[in-house]
Amino acid sequence: MTNIGILYACKDDGVQKDIHELKNAALVWEKEKIVWVGHEDALPDMYSEMERMDAGGNMVIPGLIDCHTHLAFGGWREDEYELRSLGRPYIEIAKAGGGILNSVRNTREATEDELIEVCIERLDEIKKLGVTTVECKSGYGLNKEDELKVLRVYRKLDALQPLDIISTFLGAHTIPPEYKENREEYIRLLTDDLIPFIAENDLATFCDIFVEETAFSIDEARTILGTAKKAGFGLKLHADQLSSGGGAELAAELGAVSADHLEYISDDGIRAMAKANTVAVSIPFATFYLRQQSIPARKLIDAGVPVAVSTDFNPGSAPSYHLPLAMHLGCTLQYMSPAEVLKGATLYAAKALNLDTHTGSLEPGKNADFAVIKSKSINHWMYHFTPNACQMTVKDGRVIWSV
Amino acid sequence: MTNIGILYACKDDGVQKDIHELKNAALVWEKEKIVWVGHEDALPDMYSEMERMDAGGNMVIPGLIDCHTHLAFGGWREDEYELRSLGRPYIEIAKAGGGILNSVRNTREATEDELIEVCIERLDEIKKLGVTTVECKSGYGLNKEDELKVLRVYRKLDALQPLDIISTFLGAHTIPPEYKENREEYIRLLTDDLIPFIAENDLATFCDIFVEETAFSIDEARTILGTAKKAGFGLKLHADQLSSGGGAELAAELGAVSADHLEYISDDGIRAMAKANTVAVSIPFATFYLRQQSIPARKLIDAGVPVAVSTDFNPGSAPSYHLPLAMHLGCTLQYMSPAEVLKGATLYAAKALNLDTHTGSLEPGKNADFAVIKSKSINHWMYHFTPNACQMTVKDGRVIWSV
Repeated sequence: MTNIGILYACKDDGVQKDIHELKNAALVWEKEKIVWVGHEDALPDMYSEMERMDAGGNMVIPGLIDCHTHLAFGGWREDEYELRSLGRPYIEIAKAGGGILNSVRNTREATEDELIEVCIERLDEIKKLGVTTVECKSGYGLNKEDELKVLRVYRKLDALQPLDIISTFLGAHTIPPEYKENREEYIRLLTDDLIPFIAENDLATFCDIFVEETAFSIDEARTILGTAKKAGFGLKLHADQLSSGGGAELAAELGAVSADHLEYISDDGIRAMAKANTVAVSIPFATFYLRQQSIPARKLIDAGVPVAVSTDFNPGSAPSYHLPLAMHLGCTLQYMSPAEVLKGATLYAAKALNLDTHTGSLEPGKNADFAVIKSKSINHWMYHFTPNACQMTVKDGRVIWSV
Repeated sequence: MTNIGILYACKDDGVQKDIHELKNAALVWEKEKIVWVGHEDALPDMYSEMERMDAGGNMVIPGLIDCHTHLAFGGWREDEYELRSLGRPYIEIAKAGGGILNSVRNTREATEDELIEVCIERLDEIKKLGVTTVECKSGYGLNKEDELKVLRVYRKLDALQPLDIISTFLGAHTIPPEYKENREEYIRLLTDDLIPFIAENDLATFCDIFVEETAFSIDEARTILGTAKKAGFGLKLHADQLSSGGGAELAAELGAVSADHLEYISDDGIRAMAKANTVAVSIPFATFYLRQQSIPARKLIDAGVPVAVSTDFNPGSAPSYHLPLAMHLGCTLQYMSPAEVLKGATLYAAKALNLDTHTGSLEPGKNADFAVIKSKSINHWMYHFTPNACQMTVKDGRVIWSV
């Protein structure tokens, strides 16, 4: 591809704000791999006979990676949104049958085919935003049958459409109503049945848990994630979202690939994550919709923690899959610069999925996953928010969408 | 148009949350006027032979009205956005040559044709969002030549493209640098020269002023707006944005059609506006980008003040023209319900422009200005934010855009 006005390579140099700008660039790929990136006038002769695409002077970025979503769910909760707009507290809504258990009910009722259908519709829209990889969590099934159903949906989606789908088992999202009086039994279901079964059938890459007073304790998390680690899963944690509970420290201790949310992370947690090189996944939509305090992104970045940005797409606290809008909110709500959110939604999101060896930046040897954005710079893109500035999405060297 | 899944008529009944939902609706228009709205199965026989359009079961709303923008400006200020993302205060940026004076410089440098060209590009995108009317302010010229240039741009735009353009003279946006030591002289330029000239040449419908410690005082506003009123202008005020300065009270006293911003409106201001039936124009983007406190929308609505919602599109504090996103922010930041922001961006926005007799709601006799939205309800549209849910925009009975 030639006539690239500006390209951001987003290479891995440990500095979040450094996104490796290259003006008047060209990008060469063969089959699914990038073979050359540089100034167009330095394009080696050996590539001069190749088929060319014209970027129209636009900007090129690594394909965006949404490293935290709950893509497959049945039903929506738009009427709860109205109540929350008017200031009604979540706890009241949950007591009236709303909240997460509403989504559990609707997800259990949906068939595998119904979930596949709605997810394909969603992914078809997501790819138009320049996204090339999506992490997808279970966690609205909360029993063996329905957790496995959702994980099978993700495995099938990975084959049925062009985006890479990375699945995460989040059986430990909350204690399901049937086990309310017997949480130990639910935890045994996870550790003794589901985790081994999912590992054996290769139904998920990561295991995640919601560590919070209202969900699972640190000790329970240690048990569940310990089992998952032994079974070969990468680890993730929903941590410190509503209070500072030691989730970040645990993520570091267990060698988790990421700790997500972190609105209330402690200074000890920040130090521990920096030392362990755990990725912090920020979730601007949840902060915004729940009118919460933000993740201390500046403190994390200053401490050397890579901060990824994701949508957390889910039917409750983040009902939008618009990753560029989440990045935009990241600039305003979380005091990250446009360059920092770009690295956060590309290379660092890839790190949060252990994919940074083959995607997330534009370098020879990596997958040709990229997006053409109608904008003159990363600052301008984030500043002048338009419905969708993406002009073209390329995944594994194939154009999977263009205007 | 038939097969409308849900239609919101947004009639004028004094209740902001009442948007007059009609399921399985039909909408009939002849030339540019609506002649019938109702349940499809009650469609009178006399219309059965007319040409039909199918809404595909989607939602129909009155055409959106953006009642507060600064559409025509030269240049952008994306690098200031980066600084503000990182928390740099506006005052520092302004001192370094940024801020509003940056836009004044760039707008003065732009030719009339250049401004027309960028504005047409912007309006072409704005109409895709379901917007049918846009209010546009001057205020980056700040001298006779350049203020008139911008107002001529608006008059020409009204003729050159399908959206209705309502122009507002905002010569009193700030004191221009040349008059910094002699503000009385600038005010005389406004009252003795520009206002009479603009009135005589019918170059603007409204006259607006920024009332704030850093801009114009209440007394100055009374002088300028008094002159404008006598010259036949409708009045608007940027009021109480950064502090509570009596701007809302003045708007009520002078019979202004709207007072805009109002983040710091006093309780006296609310009472005065309710009594005078002045529209409060809320500006969610500015609140969000400037990380300010919000307009007390609930207090205003409870006091009976109509609250309109607008983008304030401008190159500094609100660099997006995405009115549905502004509405969405209104729900979260300002505690308005989805129904309330819809009425705020249709009927009440029309009121803020004295246009409510012929647009802003779907009723016989009004203009056939409407949008088809791919969503099942207003709650769902605002909740599940997608890049652009608008499928078709109709202005004066003509389809001006469709997917």
